Amino acid sequence: MPFTVKALQKTGPEQPFRVTTIERRDPRPDDVVIDIRAAGICHSDIHTIRNEWGEASFPLTVGHEIAGVVSAVGADVTDWKVGDRAGVGCLVNSCGSCEECRADQEQNCLEGNVGTYNARDVDGTVTQGGYAEQVVVNERFVCRIPDELAFDAAAPLLCAGITTYSPLRRWGAGETVDGRAKRVAVLGLGGLGHMGVQIAAAMGAEVTVLSRTLKKEQDALALGATRVLATTEEDFFRDHRGEFDLILNTISASIPVDRYLGLLAPRGVMAVVGLPPEQQPVGFGSLIGGAKVLAGSNIGGIAETQEMLDFCAEHGLAAKVEVIGVHEADAAYDRVVAGDVHFRAVIDTATFADAAAE
Amino acid sequence: MPFTVKALQKTGPEQPFRVTTIERRDPRPDDVVIDIRAAGICHSDIHTIRNEWGEASFPLTVGHEIAGVVSAVGADVTDWKVGDRAGVGCLVNSCGSCEECRADQEQNCLEGNVGTYNARDVDGTVTQGGYAEQVVVNERFVCRIPDELAFDAAAPLLCAGITTYSPLRRWGAGETVDGRAKRVAVLGLGGLGHMGVQIAAAMGAEVTVLSRTLKKEQDALALGATRVLATTEEDFFRDHRGEFDLILNTISASIPVDRYLGLLAPRGVMAVVGLPPEQQPVGFGSLIGGAKVLAGSNIGGIAETQEMLDFCAEHGLAAKVEVIGVHEADAAYDRVVAGDVHFRAVIDTATFADAAAE
Repeated sequence: MPFTVKALQKTGPEQPFRVTTIERRDPRPDDVVIDIRAAGICHSDIHTIRNEWGEASFPLTVGHEIAGVVSAVGADVTDWKVGDRAGVGCLVNSCGSCEECRADQEQNCLEGNVGTYNARDVDGTVTQGGYAEQVVVNERFVCRIPDELAFDAAAPLLCAGITTYSPLRRWGAGETVDGRAKRVAVLGLGGLGHMGVQIAAAMGAEVTVLSRTLKKEQDALALGATRVLATTEEDFFRDHRGEFDLILNTISASIPVDRYLGLLAPRGVMAVVGLPPEQQPVGFGSLIGGAKVLAGSNIGGIAETQEMLDFCAEHGLAAKVEVIGVHEADAAYDRVVAGDVHFRAVIDTATFADAAAE
Repeated sequence: MPFTVKALQKTGPEQPFRVTTIERRDPRPDDVVIDIRAAGICHSDIHTIRNEWGEASFPLTVGHEIAGVVSAVGADVTDWKVGDRAGVGCLVNSCGSCEECRADQEQNCLEGNVGTYNARDVDGTVTQGGYAEQVVVNERFVCRIPDELAFDAAAPLLCAGITTYSPLRRWGAGETVDGRAKRVAVLGLGGLGHMGVQIAAAMGAEVTVLSRTLKKEQDALALGATRVLATTEEDFFRDHRGEFDLILNTISASIPVDRYLGLLAPRGVMAVVGLPPEQQPVGFGSLIGGAKVLAGSNIGGIAETQEMLDFCAEHGLAAKVEVIGVHEADAAYDRVVAGDVHFRAVIDTATFADAAAE
C-alpha cells in the first residue's frame, strides 16, 4: 500500500514551503525504504522549484542529497537490511540495460535517467525528492554511507561530492606530472567548490582557489587549498598564465572562457559543472594552442558515487554544513542564493516531528 | 659557411610567388641537411603568407610539409646518414628541456617552439620553409620516412597527417566501446579530413564523413568511410543525435557547436583542429549533459609524428596529392582556397632545376 510521509512542498514557484504530507509508493520487491535523517539544499533544488530551468511540476518536493537509515526492504532485496546507513543522490532509476547503464554511467542513460524529483518515473508518476521523512528507492540507486560520516555532513556528498569527485577523477587530479603533483584550481568556493577543494587535496593535488576576492581565504586554506587568488586583481590572467593543469569551474555565472583557458598549462583541462544561462564565447584558438580541453561533467554513476563516499570516509572529508529545521527552508534558499551559507544548508528531517502538516 | 638554395618566395601578402635564392645556415654539429623532394601546400601556408594570421615577416618562404633525402650531416649526428629518407613538419626547434619537451610534446614547448617558417629561430633569424631545394634542420626535428611512402604522398603527412592522427589517438578512435568499434565522424573532407578518414578507419573506427553535400561521397568511401551525411539536410541534427563517439572537426569556418555536440553520444569528444576566426558560442549545458568534451589539438610531438609515419606505412596510407611545378604555386593557392584540390597540392621541388632564380 502507498503510504504518506511529511514533506516540504511548494505549490508554485512563488509560494513558500509548507509542511504537508505526500505519498510514497508501496515498496516493490527491489525497493528500499529509507528513513531520511538529513536532506541537503542544492542550488539545483532552487533553480528547479523557482522554475528557472523550465517547467516544474507542482505541487513539488525537491531534494536530492539524502542520507538516512533503511527502515524496510522489498522481498527481493538481499544487499540491504533494516538499520543500514543509506544515501540517495540525484538519480532514482534508469533503464539498466543501455550502453551507458552497462558502463555504470546511469546518469547518461540513453533512455533517459529518472531524477530524484520533478522527473517522470517509470510508472508515470512525478518523482518527489528528499525534503521529507522517508523515501522509497530502487536498491540499485542506494549508496552505503560509511559509519565515519555523519548524516548531515554526508547528505551533500550525494550531489556536491560526486559532482566534483567525478571530473577530478576523470581528469587525473591525483596523478603526477613529471614527478610533481597536479596543479588544480577550483573556481568558486560554494557548496560544490568546497567539496572540490577537499577532494582534490586529498587526491594529492596542489589546490588553488580562484575567487573574486580573498574574502574566503581562511576557509579555503582550512579545506586544503595552498592559496587563494583573487580573479579581480589587475593582470590576474596575465600573471597566472599557464599555471594550472586542471580548472574545476563550479560557478554558474558567465566567465571569460578564453582568459581562463589561458591559465591552463598545455594539455590542461577546464572541467565545468556550473551552468551559466547564456552561451559562452570560446575561441577555438584557445583550445588548439596547447591542445587544451573544455569538458562538461554531470554528477556521476552510482558505482562512482559509492567510491566517492568511501574515499571521503577514508580521508576524513565531509561537507561543511549549517543544519536547519524544516521551517527555515525559505530563509535558507535566500541565503544560498546570496552566497551566504558555509557551505551547504542541510535540513534536519527530525524537525518534521514537531511540524504540523497542512 | 651559409649557402644558398633556390626557393619560392613572396615579398608581400599580395605579391605573386617568385623563384629566388635564399640562404641556409652552415650546418651545426647537430644539424641535418635535406635535399627536398616534395613540399606540401598547407592551408596554414596560405593564411600566413597572405597575412591572415597577423604579421608575416617578408620576404618569406613557407612550407612545413617537407620530404626528401639527407645530403649532409653535422659532425655530432650519429642517427642520420647521407641518403636517408627524411621529413620535416611544422617544427624545427624547441628548448628541449621544459616539461612539455621532456614529455615529447615539443609543439607545446613552454619557451615557445620554433616553427618551420616565419618564426624567430634561436639565432635570431626568421625561419624559412620548405618550398625550396634544401633545408637545414636540427636532427631532433627530423623524422624518418618509411620506404613504403613516396615523397610526394608522404610530405603532407608531416602536417595534415599528424594533425589528425594525434587527436584520433588521444581520444581513442581505435578503442572499442562495449565491444563495438568507435563511431568517428570527420567534419570536412579537405587536406586534413582526407587523412583523418584514412587514419581513423585504419585504427579500426567506423567512420562517417560529415560534409555540406554528398558531392564527395565516392571519395569518402574510397578513403575508408562507411557513409557520408550531408549536414545541410533537413533535420540533420535531430536525425543523427547521439550517433558519434568522436567528431574530428577539420573545418576552419564557424559551426553551430551546440548542435554538433548534440551529435555526440554521452562522454563523446569533439576534437577541433580547424581555427575559425570568430569565437564560437558554446552552451555549457551541451557539455555538461552527457559529460562531453570539446578539445583542441595542434599537430603533435616529433615522436608521435614518427609513430604516425610508421602507422601510415604499415597500413598503406598516404596523402592523395596533385603534384605541381614551382610555377604553379599561385594557381594552386587559389584552388586550395576554392576547395578544388583533391586533396593536397604538393610541389615537386625537382622543378626548381629548370626555373631561373630572380
